[in-house]
Amino acid sequence: MSINYKQRLNRIRAFVFDMDGVLTNGVFHVGGDGKPIRNLNSKDGYAIQLAVKKGYTVGLISGGNCDGVKSLLQKAGITDIYMRAASKLDAWSDFLSVYEHQDLKPEEIVYMGDDIPDYYLIEAAGVGCCPANAAPEIKQVSDYVSHRNGGEGCVRDIIEQTLKVQNNWMLQGDFAW
Amino acid sequence: MSINYKQRLNRIRAFVFDMDGVLTNGVFHVGGDGKPIRNLNSKDGYAIQLAVKKGYTVGLISGGNCDGVKSLLQKAGITDIYMRAASKLDAWSDFLSVYEHQDLKPEEIVYMGDDIPDYYLIEAAGVGCCPANAAPEIKQVSDYVSHRNGGEGCVRDIIEQTLKVQNNWMLQGDFAW
Amino acid sequence: MSINYKQRLNRIRAFVFDMDGVLTNGVFHVGGDGKPIRNLNSKDGYAIQLAVKKGYTVGLISGGNCDGVKSLLQKAGITDIYMRAASKLDAWSDFLSVYEHQDLKPEEIVYMGDDIPDYYLIEAAGVGCCPANAAPEIKQVSDYVSHRNGGEGCVRDIIEQTLKVQNNWMLQGDFAW
Amino acid sequence: MSINYKQRLNRIRAFVFDMDGVLTNGVFHVGGDGKPIRNLNSKDGYAIQLAVKKGYTVGLISGGNCDGVKSLLQKAGITDIYMRAASKLDAWSDFLSVYEHQDLKPEEIVYMGDDIPDYYLIEAAGVGCCPANAAPEIKQVSDYVSHRNGGEGCVRDIIEQTLKVQNNWMLQGDFAW
Repeated sequence: MSINYKQRLNRIRAFVFDMDGVLTNGVFHVGGDGKPIRNLNSKDGYAIQLAVKKGYTVGLISGGNCDGVKSLLQKAGITDIYMRAASKLDAWSDFLSVYEHQDLKPEEIVYMGDDIPDYYLIEAAGVGCCPANAAPEIKQVSDYVSHRNGGEGCVRDIIEQTLKVQNNWMLQGDFAW
Repeated sequence: MSINYKQRLNRIRAFVFDMDGVLTNGVFHVGGDGKPIRNLNSKDGYAIQLAVKKGYTVGLISGGNCDGVKSLLQKAGITDIYMRAASKLDAWSDFLSVYEHQDLKPEEIVYMGDDIPDYYLIEAAGVGCCPANAAPEIKQVSDYVSHRNGGEGCVRDIIEQTLKVQNNWMLQGDFAW
Repeated sequence: MSINYKQRLNRIRAFVFDMDGVLTNGVFHVGGDGKPIRNLNSKDGYAIQLAVKKGYTVGLISGGNCDGVKSLLQKAGITDIYMRAASKLDAWSDFLSVYEHQDLKPEEIVYMGDDIPDYYLIEAAGVGCCPANAAPEIKQVSDYVSHRNGGEGCVRDIIEQTLKVQNNWMLQGDFAW
Repeated sequence: MSINYKQRLNRIRAFVFDMDGVLTNGVFHVGGDGKPIRNLNSKDGYAIQLAVKKGYTVGLISGGNCDGVKSLLQKAGITDIYMRAASKLDAWSDFLSVYEHQDLKPEEIVYMGDDIPDYYLIEAAGVGCCPANAAPEIKQVSDYVSHRNGGEGCVRDIIEQTLKVQNNWMLQGDFAW
């Protein structure tokens, strides 16, 4: 690392998250119908809606699929949601091309993932980061390892740090959903 | 703090709680329909119904919405339930006006919240408190930080302490639901 | 205690359990319909079906209600299930009268509960016990406090200890459900 | 043990897992319909689909039953799923006979279980192993005790170790689901 991750957070304009093990704790519940039930965290949710409200782009790239998570994220104003992404690099390229007109560069994006399929995106992003309980291979290539586990506030952690670095945290108007 | 929170508990006549991260552990589950499933704790539940039975006013102010939690709280005799409260201060003002005829003052109310949107209510309440895993900004302005996390007994903790201070705990009749 | 709980386990012929916070971890989930979803533990489940198979009487006394838990317990051969028991002492008396023809005495029953409404049954039972995370008032009057929390094996713990004391654990036939 | 479990992993061609307490954390949720909801872990899921993709045989033998888990495992390419197995040894024999034409021997199979009904299979398998929170009787006869609990990565742990020993981990193509 030529410059540390805190400095890199200064230029961040977008966040892209993995779903299982990052937005969720990696556990999914299944009943008789085999349709997984996933979990989200209210403190992460507050940070996500705040980032969207403040004009950051927020996206999701997941190998899995969950209509419920999709629908909740859409209510928070997130439009770039890639589910069933067999190759995450393809989704990443697509995401970049969507924001080409805004001249969004990889250096301006935070990517947070927790497992092997996230490997190349962790490397590609300006700030590649992961939760405390990520796979060791992912921790090794991350610019920043959160002190929080997946589904337990790691998303809040990186959004909050970014907004603080950019003097964009706890301003008038941040106190409502 | 001119007087400590234990002394302040003496004059408490009402409790108002946040939902996500206080009554619940902050996690919500989502399946295909995108309707969040929340969680409650039986030890909190015992304390809430006991407080209602003993004549305390119990209310809820949440930015989120959950018909299931609402219905369970209503069964416990709680009538002042504010869901989808974009501005918690507005809901708080409304709550105060409802109990104006009983001359209920902010100093007589416990408010427990865990995140930025709870900030002003923590400050407004007679005893502003929060769970052990609240956001640091909230812990800083709280009169009391529970040793228990959200959804893991923080509600029971503050109700129990209040009733004990007022010599209202473990009396005849407290042993049934 | 004139004799310790290990000695008392020698004469145990029946187990009665509380539901929330003992068979479950005390958390219940609620979605839009307000019908609580509870949780059970497979290691407890193994011990319960084994105790029934070996001829012990197993009962449940709860202030709450859950048709799903009831149905699973009934499949394991449990018939004495008291739900919505406003007064647990009434349910206890009823349970005793049902087994009067077998001359079952309170000294021959283990009761495990975790909160104030269990207080009198903890005192009434031959071995009154509770999970590690029971309310302090309950721990104080218990003959035995398990090292395991509610829903995390406290039921297995007390059944296993009883069967071991009675040389009834890990026998031929115990290896199948 | 004449040879240690790491050496034994060299000859492994198949994995057989217990469901409750191994693939899941042992907790199941029940609502009004009494149909248990189980939980799976995304890091285990990644390892299972990878093992299948690389040509290992993966099977499940459980005393319980869950159509949802069955359906998810089948999507990952797993065909040998024994649910409601009252005697696990019978299911094991059946599994062996299915793979007789491939000359699969017990020494080439990992079995992971967590409780008394798994006892004989732990002994029968080439590498008998269990999660960190298995019953003590099971830990005692296991060749390897994972540092991870059931439902929290114990399945990933043993698959990963096996693939690493066989130089089959983190190869080209492992980065997609």
